[in-house]
Amino acid sequence: MKLHNVSTHRKYLCGVGVGPGNPKLLTLAAVEAIESADLVLAPTSSQDEPGRAEEIIQKAIGAIPIRRILFDMAKGESGIELRKSTALVAAKEIVELLQPGEKAVFLTLGDPNVFSTFNLLARSVASIDPSVEISSIPGIMAFQDLVSRSGMTLLDEEESLRLLVGLQVDDKIEEALKDSSSAVVIYKGGRNLPAIVELAKKTGRLEDGWIGVKIGLGESEVDRLQNIGTEPVGYLSTMIFPPKRH
Amino acid sequence: MKLHNVSTHRKYLCGVGVGPGNPKLLTLAAVEAIESADLVLAPTSSQDEPGRAEEIIQKAIGAIPIRRILFDMAKGESGIELRKSTALVAAKEIVELLQPGEKAVFLTLGDPNVFSTFNLLARSVASIDPSVEISSIPGIMAFQDLVSRSGMTLLDEEESLRLLVGLQVDDKIEEALKDSSSAVVIYKGGRNLPAIVELAKKTGRLEDGWIGVKIGLGESEVDRLQNIGTEPVGYLSTMIFPPKRH
Repeated sequence: MKLHNVSTHRKYLCGVGVGPGNPKLLTLAAVEAIESADLVLAPTSSQDEPGRAEEIIQKAIGAIPIRRILFDMAKGESGIELRKSTALVAAKEIVELLQPGEKAVFLTLGDPNVFSTFNLLARSVASIDPSVEISSIPGIMAFQDLVSRSGMTLLDEEESLRLLVGLQVDDKIEEALKDSSSAVVIYKGGRNLPAIVELAKKTGRLEDGWIGVKIGLGESEVDRLQNIGTEPVGYLSTMIFPPKRH
Repeated sequence: MKLHNVSTHRKYLCGVGVGPGNPKLLTLAAVEAIESADLVLAPTSSQDEPGRAEEIIQKAIGAIPIRRILFDMAKGESGIELRKSTALVAAKEIVELLQPGEKAVFLTLGDPNVFSTFNLLARSVASIDPSVEISSIPGIMAFQDLVSRSGMTLLDEEESLRLLVGLQVDDKIEEALKDSSSAVVIYKGGRNLPAIVELAKKTGRLEDGWIGVKIGLGESEVDRLQNIGTEPVGYLSTMIFPPKRH
């Protein structure tokens, strides 16, 4: 998508959300931006294998040349520092590879402005060459796909939503679940499934809860939380609790 | 999108999210579902004029026959009752019009499971004919478009999100803004803009806030909240505050 009048002097970087996994959940804007790009980049956690965003594009558009950027997804401060240095190396490469007037797109699962490495990359590019024009195209998020597949109404009338990360199970998750007029979405909580199930039980919300595991992958699973047992599941999981309704 | 194997015995109703306004933000799945539908329905607030979802489809796909359903958007209990009776009348019509094996799609702005009339319609259809197979296709939400257009990072690392309705300005909005590690999204708060700006100032979040007014329409406006003045604006507005970052 030509978000701007293309100048022959500037370089362009666009973060493109490719949705949660189903190639049909790409937007028309995303397809257009990818097909018209001069350089397509995608994050991966292993240089030898396509990342999930790349796999989605292969299914949606076919085999196109994609430059893989290896992002280490380790947690904590050291993980953040690793990602920062990766982003800086990739940013230098992008600025060098692009000719004036050319456009790079960086593929991200879900939405590029929500828990993605795009913003980090964009900040690095801006620090190297502030004249690069940066934009993004929103994408469908995993929780929206899970809501649709569960058949629930996520929000109605004046209800609210709380979206949290479940890497640590702390007071925030309990507080959110106690707020019965809020839908609660928990990302990345699979490894803490037992503790989250316990909190959901305590706050009376277990029976309405749903979980999606590996939503972006072929073997994705969507089920009611109470059907799935209480063993930890993969990191890539989404749990959803609709508001308590009477 | 054929979400299911089509049976010749059943009838189908699919809620299709058409995104926030830009026709390019439709998904491939939405376009496919609309183009293959036997009956396309869209909500409107005036029978003589297309609703916003219909306008988006006219731009994306062209003029197709669309059956308008008049939904009164009045607030409060009486508004809800009016929408319920409208949904019931529309549901009867859908079940009568559809032949076995045929599919109706109901267009909604944004996502069909988030503050839309689709779920109400679906429940009415299910109450009349429980054999109708109901599904939905997620859509890009207005706040995602606003985030993209503002250039902000909405969520990073372990930050969280609170999405609230601003029809009433109460403790919930203040509490959300006080939680500095949360991004805050406020829908439908345009008429309470002065009070919300006041709370944002009090909690130190005004300078990072953005507002989108009439995002789904041609004359949409996106700006920093502090540039927009303090007069009430239209109902169809979205305000966003990213987490406080250091």
